[in-house]
Amino acid sequence: MSSYLGVGVSPGNVPVYHGNNLKVIDRRVRVAELILRCLICGLAILSAVLIGTDTQVKEIFSIQKKAKFTDMKSLVFLVIANGLAAAYSLVQVLRCVLSMIRGSVLFNKPLAWLIFSGDQIMAYFTLAAVAAAAQSSVFAKLGQTELQWMKICNMYRKFCNQVGEGIAGALVVSIAMVVLSAISAFSLFRLYGDNKQKNNGRW
Amino acid sequence: MSSYLGVGVSPGNVPVYHGNNLKVIDRRVRVAELILRCLICGLAILSAVLIGTDTQVKEIFSIQKKAKFTDMKSLVFLVIANGLAAAYSLVQVLRCVLSMIRGSVLFNKPLAWLIFSGDQIMAYFTLAAVAAAAQSSVFAKLGQTELQWMKICNMYRKFCNQVGEGIAGALVVSIAMVVLSAISAFSLFRLYGDNKQKNNGRW
Repeated sequence: MSSYLGVGVSPGNVPVYHGNNLKVIDRRVRVAELILRCLICGLAILSAVLIGTDTQVKEIFSIQKKAKFTDMKSLVFLVIANGLAAAYSLVQVLRCVLSMIRGSVLFNKPLAWLIFSGDQIMAYFTLAAVAAAAQSSVFAKLGQTELQWMKICNMYRKFCNQVGEGIAGALVVSIAMVVLSAISAFSLFRLYGDNKQKNNGRW
Repeated sequence: MSSYLGVGVSPGNVPVYHGNNLKVIDRRVRVAELILRCLICGLAILSAVLIGTDTQVKEIFSIQKKAKFTDMKSLVFLVIANGLAAAYSLVQVLRCVLSMIRGSVLFNKPLAWLIFSGDQIMAYFTLAAVAAAAQSSVFAKLGQTELQWMKICNMYRKFCNQVGEGIAGALVVSIAMVVLSAISAFSLFRLYGDNKQKNNGRW
């Protein structure tokens, strides 16, 4: 018998080991998921508020000019993406807390697919929004002399700094979403596992 | 006994059903993976060449001006990202073909982790590159009047069209990478499956 190896060819031989192992992983995964989702919810709101409320008025030759985030479409896109991420995370936090109170484990494939799809979409969406906003702010900060696009951040210094903080927050949000989408992929695809061939080391 | 349900509590009861099901899924997944990786390799090279070789000379008031992709940092980034995606996919295609010739299935966890990590990184990396390049080309196409950044695409029409084709190709590459990273997540995380509790419908 191979049961002394800890992992038998037929899992029926070692039910206690496997069951405990699964429970420990489950608990850790669930706690990590809840923490990440709360973090995303808070940071996404903070980042959206930072960018959305950012304005600066500058007087140039007695003409008042006002910089606001709607001047740059990519910042509008980022605020929308962060708002969506916050709302989505709030719903998911409620789902996590509910399943923790019930003490249940996710074994429902359609629901796991739904969570996986949602997390994937949000991860790619927030990352794309951050990349576009970061590209815009590089132009604003450094300009693009070949195209005669001048830098505007030496004019609106306070405005630019606050936008930078908002983008940094959004970057952390999108990285957390990436980690979360890996966790939800784990939760989904292990339902398709086939342990019988686990010990087979070939590839 | 529950074996008439097709999925027994102890998988040892129904080895044939499970084994066949796994093989069919495996074959489909492997073929889809190979096709996608070949598609990525070809399209990424095409897209990099389209952008990298794109130039246009324009005479303005007897001064010759030349537009090339290095004028815009995000296009350089996109060419690099596409080059990396093509090289990475080539290595993966060889790995896929090798494992098909051997007729073996991926059950090696470290290797599965490596493939999963690589696919995730490439997917997020190519998507971020496309988003940044798309944002730049929106500025080039439409300008940003609030910031006095003028549109340059009415001046370099041929240059802009070719860049647009390159970005479209890169977008398809990044979408294919996203699908591939879901496939490799499936290949990895099903190794952590625990079929004993599969019939448990709670969540």
